[in-house]
Amino acid sequence: MAIRVGIDIGATKTKIILITGKGEILARRKIVTDSLGDPNPIVERSSAEVADMLKTEGVKNSKVEAIAVGIAGFSNPRTGMIDLSPNLKWHKVPFTSMMKKKLGREIFMANDVNAAAWGEFTYGAGQGTTDMVAVFVGSGIGGGIVSGKKLVEGATGTAGEVGHMTYRENGIKCPCGQRGCFEAYGGGVPMEIRTRKAVKSGKGRLILEMAKGDVDKINTRTIRLAAEKGDKTAGMIWKQAQESLVTLCSNLTSLLNPDRLVLGGGVLEGNPGLLKIIKDEVPKRAVTLSGRHVKVVPSQLGDDAVAMGAAALVDLYR
Amino acid sequence: MAIRVGIDIGATKTKIILITGKGEILARRKIVTDSLGDPNPIVERSSAEVADMLKTEGVKNSKVEAIAVGIAGFSNPRTGMIDLSPNLKWHKVPFTSMMKKKLGREIFMANDVNAAAWGEFTYGAGQGTTDMVAVFVGSGIGGGIVSGKKLVEGATGTAGEVGHMTYRENGIKCPCGQRGCFEAYGGGVPMEIRTRKAVKSGKGRLILEMAKGDVDKINTRTIRLAAEKGDKTAGMIWKQAQESLVTLCSNLTSLLNPDRLVLGGGVLEGNPGLLKIIKDEVPKRAVTLSGRHVKVVPSQLGDDAVAMGAAALVDLYR
Repeated sequence: MAIRVGIDIGATKTKIILITGKGEILARRKIVTDSLGDPNPIVERSSAEVADMLKTEGVKNSKVEAIAVGIAGFSNPRTGMIDLSPNLKWHKVPFTSMMKKKLGREIFMANDVNAAAWGEFTYGAGQGTTDMVAVFVGSGIGGGIVSGKKLVEGATGTAGEVGHMTYRENGIKCPCGQRGCFEAYGGGVPMEIRTRKAVKSGKGRLILEMAKGDVDKINTRTIRLAAEKGDKTAGMIWKQAQESLVTLCSNLTSLLNPDRLVLGGGVLEGNPGLLKIIKDEVPKRAVTLSGRHVKVVPSQLGDDAVAMGAAALVDLYR
Repeated sequence: MAIRVGIDIGATKTKIILITGKGEILARRKIVTDSLGDPNPIVERSSAEVADMLKTEGVKNSKVEAIAVGIAGFSNPRTGMIDLSPNLKWHKVPFTSMMKKKLGREIFMANDVNAAAWGEFTYGAGQGTTDMVAVFVGSGIGGGIVSGKKLVEGATGTAGEVGHMTYRENGIKCPCGQRGCFEAYGGGVPMEIRTRKAVKSGKGRLILEMAKGDVDKINTRTIRLAAEKGDKTAGMIWKQAQESLVTLCSNLTSLLNPDRLVLGGGVLEGNPGLLKIIKDEVPKRAVTLSGRHVKVVPSQLGDDAVAMGAAALVDLYR
């Protein structure tokens, strides 16, 4: 049997799967990443874990077709170089060659969100389409584009940065350093930071109540619940988040005319009403033919999307 | 010799070229379109003209590989159906089958702006790249995307509607019926309409002066000149146009990570300073890696882009 290894390196956890070319998951492990500022710990740990997994009964005699990593950050999949990963605080890391030294074989790399989009296209909510856009709203906002059954990678592999398009010039400061990005309005972490700041300054009493009096427990769900109960601060922040996401999804639909718009990520999963609003509004707001055509659907692969997609993406690079 | 026919049907003029597969133009004709609300006149006239051109010395013994039409409007290139062409006031026109009846051979069709983008990619400012975005700012704003050397057509052929992405929710009314599209702020016609209205209400004295006292002579150039001389109304409208175009181009760069951003169209050609501003701002405003990588360049094919691109696009459809 031919198998692949898919690795999803997140800021806190790293997920490793063994998967067949058809998308059947044979094994799954999760380890802590604990590699802020220095890639070496996770390179060591994930390599050891992969080596160990491949010794397991059941896959011992399988041919390993490829090992692929999905990782957050601005990187060039073709060179294997990570220019900047803000979440991991890595700067100019030649990641695939570091992994290659440990595992003794070629490593494929992809941006985590492009990998997740490709996973949804290959094995999840985008199956059977030719054109798909995926938007993941979690701590930040990421996306991936499939056009004519091909992943839109861009000239240097950084296409799909849906969250860092400008929504409002001179708007709210975004973690990326720019102002007014969609992520600054609709991303989970920026939304929480703004809200905590407002609560600390005495606003948004109901938000604090929803978070049981603990400012650190404020999240997009508590913001939304407080907004629903009439809290003004929460209402303003939540409304801006909704509007920014509707505009983002409508714009992507007008620009790319996809069959399906796949929506996933923690903020969307924790606030199911958002999907409905986007579903209702995109057909009205996007260019007519594209708005009528697109189907807005939830992602299907959840936590496995990055690792599965990375493993599937291998076929693009060889 | 194998030749192709490229036809560019605009609201007022229709251009026909005979071209080789390598992009060498053998003959060129221009006729009036005069076909508002009814496609029959231009179907008749352009078919007769094509037939006549093909009888000319020099191409008489050539093999006609394909006849391709680039046309403004929302259409599906694969079915040959024009759903709506606002400029021509056509609604649900089975265009390619009408042309086929006259010319007795298959006709290929493409959206005019996608054709122009493909023309620039194949024969013009996008040559040699893998990923290119073209933005044409004329009466309206249109665009075309090339990813991995393929035209991004979308699921039903309407991808590339860069001008009808939302720039400002509940913003200025756009000719498309929506509010706040990029085109409403940066497109030539919407800009002129707003300015004329302001001038008629007594504002923008300097704009009227630049247009030699004739409201109908107000165009983007007179608006820009008045803005440069300190006219407040012109200044506001021109600044919004600049900002909207900078944001549009930065967003497309962040999203698509192109090698080149090709800028063309009457408004950009009439106001060369705009290209410079966009060139200066995109690297600062777009996602770092993509902003640093992209080259902002003027279009090269001018008036021939649509007809040349349509003829080249034929290869995608067969």
